[in-house]
Amino acid sequence: MLSFENDYTMGAHPQVLQRLIDSNFDPQPGYGNDRYCAAAKEKIAALCDCSDAQVHFLVGGTQTNALIIRALLKSYEGVIAASTAHIAVHEAGAVEATGHKVLTLPEHDGKIRPEEVQAYIDRFYQDASHTHMVYPGMVYISHPTELGTLYSKRELQKLSEICRNNGLSLFLDGARLGYGLASKQTDVRLADIAQLCDVFSIGGTKVGALCGEAVVFPKNNTPRHFLTMVKSHGALLAKGRLLGLQFDALFTDGLYFAISAHAIEMAEKLKALFTEKGYRFAWQSPTNQQFFVFENAEIERLREQVRFDLWERIDDTQTVVRFATSWATQDSDIAALRALL
Amino acid sequence: MLSFENDYTMGAHPQVLQRLIDSNFDPQPGYGNDRYCAAAKEKIAALCDCSDAQVHFLVGGTQTNALIIRALLKSYEGVIAASTAHIAVHEAGAVEATGHKVLTLPEHDGKIRPEEVQAYIDRFYQDASHTHMVYPGMVYISHPTELGTLYSKRELQKLSEICRNNGLSLFLDGARLGYGLASKQTDVRLADIAQLCDVFSIGGTKVGALCGEAVVFPKNNTPRHFLTMVKSHGALLAKGRLLGLQFDALFTDGLYFAISAHAIEMAEKLKALFTEKGYRFAWQSPTNQQFFVFENAEIERLREQVRFDLWERIDDTQTVVRFATSWATQDSDIAALRALL
Amino acid sequence: MLSFENDYTMGAHPQVLQRLIDSNFDPQPGYGNDRYCAAAKEKIAALCDCSDAQVHFLVGGTQTNALIIRALLKSYEGVIAASTAHIAVHEAGAVEATGHKVLTLPEHDGKIRPEEVQAYIDRFYQDASHTHMVYPGMVYISHPTELGTLYSKRELQKLSEICRNNGLSLFLDGARLGYGLASKQTDVRLADIAQLCDVFSIGGTKVGALCGEAVVFPKNNTPRHFLTMVKSHGALLAKGRLLGLQFDALFTDGLYFAISAHAIEMAEKLKALFTEKGYRFAWQSPTNQQFFVFENAEIERLREQVRFDLWERIDDTQTVVRFATSWATQDSDIAALRALL
Amino acid sequence: MLSFENDYTMGAHPQVLQRLIDSNFDPQPGYGNDRYCAAAKEKIAALCDCSDAQVHFLVGGTQTNALIIRALLKSYEGVIAASTAHIAVHEAGAVEATGHKVLTLPEHDGKIRPEEVQAYIDRFYQDASHTHMVYPGMVYISHPTELGTLYSKRELQKLSEICRNNGLSLFLDGARLGYGLASKQTDVRLADIAQLCDVFSIGGTKVGALCGEAVVFPKNNTPRHFLTMVKSHGALLAKGRLLGLQFDALFTDGLYFAISAHAIEMAEKLKALFTEKGYRFAWQSPTNQQFFVFENAEIERLREQVRFDLWERIDDTQTVVRFATSWATQDSDIAALRALL
Repeated sequence: MLSFENDYTMGAHPQVLQRLIDSNFDPQPGYGNDRYCAAAKEKIAALCDCSDAQVHFLVGGTQTNALIIRALLKSYEGVIAASTAHIAVHEAGAVEATGHKVLTLPEHDGKIRPEEVQAYIDRFYQDASHTHMVYPGMVYISHPTELGTLYSKRELQKLSEICRNNGLSLFLDGARLGYGLASKQTDVRLADIAQLCDVFSIGGTKVGALCGEAVVFPKNNTPRHFLTMVKSHGALLAKGRLLGLQFDALFTDGLYFAISAHAIEMAEKLKALFTEKGYRFAWQSPTNQQFFVFENAEIERLREQVRFDLWERIDDTQTVVRFATSWATQDSDIAALRALL
Repeated sequence: MLSFENDYTMGAHPQVLQRLIDSNFDPQPGYGNDRYCAAAKEKIAALCDCSDAQVHFLVGGTQTNALIIRALLKSYEGVIAASTAHIAVHEAGAVEATGHKVLTLPEHDGKIRPEEVQAYIDRFYQDASHTHMVYPGMVYISHPTELGTLYSKRELQKLSEICRNNGLSLFLDGARLGYGLASKQTDVRLADIAQLCDVFSIGGTKVGALCGEAVVFPKNNTPRHFLTMVKSHGALLAKGRLLGLQFDALFTDGLYFAISAHAIEMAEKLKALFTEKGYRFAWQSPTNQQFFVFENAEIERLREQVRFDLWERIDDTQTVVRFATSWATQDSDIAALRALL
Repeated sequence: MLSFENDYTMGAHPQVLQRLIDSNFDPQPGYGNDRYCAAAKEKIAALCDCSDAQVHFLVGGTQTNALIIRALLKSYEGVIAASTAHIAVHEAGAVEATGHKVLTLPEHDGKIRPEEVQAYIDRFYQDASHTHMVYPGMVYISHPTELGTLYSKRELQKLSEICRNNGLSLFLDGARLGYGLASKQTDVRLADIAQLCDVFSIGGTKVGALCGEAVVFPKNNTPRHFLTMVKSHGALLAKGRLLGLQFDALFTDGLYFAISAHAIEMAEKLKALFTEKGYRFAWQSPTNQQFFVFENAEIERLREQVRFDLWERIDDTQTVVRFATSWATQDSDIAALRALL
Repeated sequence: MLSFENDYTMGAHPQVLQRLIDSNFDPQPGYGNDRYCAAAKEKIAALCDCSDAQVHFLVGGTQTNALIIRALLKSYEGVIAASTAHIAVHEAGAVEATGHKVLTLPEHDGKIRPEEVQAYIDRFYQDASHTHMVYPGMVYISHPTELGTLYSKRELQKLSEICRNNGLSLFLDGARLGYGLASKQTDVRLADIAQLCDVFSIGGTKVGALCGEAVVFPKNNTPRHFLTMVKSHGALLAKGRLLGLQFDALFTDGLYFAISAHAIEMAEKLKALFTEKGYRFAWQSPTNQQFFVFENAEIERLREQVRFDLWERIDDTQTVVRFATSWATQDSDIAALRALL
């Protein structure tokens, strides 16, 4: 059975796995005080081109989002996000469980527009009753977004400027950051993100690790007693080495970027294939997730031989489907898919 | 200065005040175990035409909303409400502070539509990833709504049916319920609400009391240990009598309904006056709050002699304003306003 | 039936009631922006001998405690309190409902000892695993305590010094503060409290008001956007005047102090009476609550003619009981009680 | 350097690691719907001798404790635990962060006594003001406890009986359960725990896995929509296989029990060695953690060649230290330690 349903069906990238094997009998202190965490932090900070960058490792994406939002917001603040944002829809209310409101703005191909963020803030402060409302305290974006789309550097700069001018934090959720950086249609580099955001994550789970998110506070701006908040959230691993060694492997010799570039290469071939075969793109995505409009009959036919994700029902006859590539996608998979279409 | 800015500028209705005076030296047990609370509960239950109705007294509206929502929802559930709902916009995130998400639907003159509630529930359960989402556990409506509008009996019946069929609670926020019941354009009676809702509130503050909301669980369905939740929320008054005696006064000899009918009478005169003078209604409201589109210049002119509320900016030249009537509004106030317009 | 069961069985002190009557038809802005709140704040600030003092009015004691603790603590902090503290035992988990732990210390006649607070802090920071523990962020005391006892000025000074040296806030819960200040065995004045604490409350409910707690931040140190937190907690009254006018009455011509002094006078007579009759004091209380060890048979006999509170079971035959005085206690009540004992 | 400081310094047990390697390229569905999770669940349920047992996999211990407590308690309930319990002291307020109070009882060698639990419940309901207090809703124990001690089967039976008679849940935290079951001084088997508890965990991290806790609801009693609560807590891994395959390996051919028995064997040798050398046991522990009273000078001397944990300061000259064994402890480690002592 061909597998394009997501980017987390396999175990770890072989080099990550090898690191697990190699380090297994090396006794190390617990709770992230091991040498693998230290090495990985150093490598990530260097890549951010930010000598002040502080790096922490967490286990999963929802955990990371809820914890960062709780750690940075005051109790009277909420977080601005796109109506389609993962934190707004698909995290089972994890942000609200920490007591904070997600303040949604309209999405445009999965993104929020800087001018609409500014307008929201302006309207908020102009409203005579805004002291009875949730203060906007942070802007959350993901890059790539839920729809696989990307912010341009100019958009990030504008969002960053708006945040700084208005006292909000800018948080970039990079659960699939590698694919964003490796896209052929981006002008955004890791160092740009480190410069423009107050905090961001670098996802491991969907880019070759078994689990793990790296959280970067690029300006020596880790919230005070962050480790205690991590512990209180149930996010501190006794064997923190599990996270450190995976990120150390991913950021040794550019593996993270190579994985991402490979998946993008495969995605480009997938796009070419679907274009050639006359399929309709639901929207344009420059990253490893591709979205098509399928007739339901076509879905029935294909599902017997290839796994893909049903994204969204359009009507009784049509559905948006998602095909994702990863480090594990091979040219032979694309060829086999070609035979099916 | 004429006063139409809201329905809570004055103290208590004279009969409520008199009850305070008369009862002052009557020693009573604390925490709502006094005879005034008992008498008021009995009167309200009788008016609900519901022998099983259980009545509790709380202090304010936001407190009431957050407490009821927290008491009825499971930790994985959220509450459906109009995008303009008080709980969604003007309660400073009180619902989220209890850990629950407000799931907003489009508003239509401040109301949600039964068919859109059903569609939301259907889409939710059809979504393959709904186990990663907040379950809809309650429908919140206010009656009158934020815009002064009212649900019809048919609409309430449909909402009630949808809630029962899908395992959701129906909660009606009646912060201004009296004005809804006294409207000349409603077919909804208190007993209908008691029959159709799982819980509702009867607001005192805006209908002649100094403070206080009566909460009605019409079917002997008070959540277990509700008093402890009230205490935990900081909503339990040592001198619970303050709430009981005000509601006892309001529900003696139909005072609550008389207050409401008077305010509606005044609102009708207000509407007639503005119509006659050629003002534009922002939308049609059948209750004690009336909304008009004013030129900003007109606002400047009038504000020197009459107080009213700026509701919402339209553009650089126009603004929606609110005029509200109450038990304290007099014919002479309308006459004085006529002279100004 | 004689009434000594608590200090909140009656309505308001007559002068507070009169203020309610006098102000009833004076139209005022909502949400605490009325002139009564303004006047009361000014009077209280002046009495604190603190030109920078900021005063806010809340409705009840549990609400006040939970809100202040939530507003001042960071998410990784808890509050130190006596094991018998109201927040630790009798507020139904209101503090924990805001996400914070109550860190209990042994009580000594209802009080915590400064040296034990310092020792707790020292042990905490010496503990190698303290980053996995709740940081102490505040010391909570009540004055009088749950047992009616009082801190000396020296004790308050020491607690204050410890808090400042260690970065903790000192919060004094003054639900019955008047009785503490009026005690014949205290050297603590209101201005001392304002000087030594970071925040404290002045209770109205149990000292002549219908409801209400004044919260004082004595050093211009109200947390940012405190009003929004008040709203979010459901603690903001639309008719905020209800609180302002009561405190304005209480702090006009020293009424609050006169009420308190009267109750203390009555308590002293009560103590003399019980001493004379050979009753056993459960512990010494210098305020308006007096605690005695009663034989259960005695309880049965007396309860037919006098109301008092059963405080704590000792064994099968004995119980600690509480007799409380208030503004409403009369010499004739004491005389009637003498006839019964 | 010899390593006895804890049971999580190494990576995974070789057979767990091998399973990771073997399964790495097997594509599997996400979020725990993989075949490894299914196989592990079946094996654990069978070992519990409970055909109705439901098993879930979570990542870490604090996460597991907070999530289970939140999922089972009503909002007005708290959890009874020993004053030394992990949830009471060393989880940074994770339970309180979910809104619940930890109700502590005195510890006796790290355990709570059934009769003191019953007495607590009795006192609670006898207290006239218990509706203003946090209801006891659950009893939390760990087995082994923080001090390495174990409950007897009789004690568990009594706790279970008290819980059932009083409507409380019994939750056994088995972060080190293997060592408890393998102890030479226990009469408690896994099936006893499944029969007597409402929910319990089987820790992986400290018994040979890289991470992971299995949660068992033995009577088909998983809370409704538990998966959504797991997601909301940030505890759902996209690659859930990571947990499933480790537990599948641990519960294949009795590995979990073999690991535990080996560590106990090593601990017995450690005990014999320390006894022989005349060291003082801080208390008797029948499991893999052993606690001794060391002179501080001795600590200084030894720390240069062996790692162990400083548990608790006694006074200026003495400290309680912990030595732990695990699957990785070898006879040669004991021999080397003997040479040092």
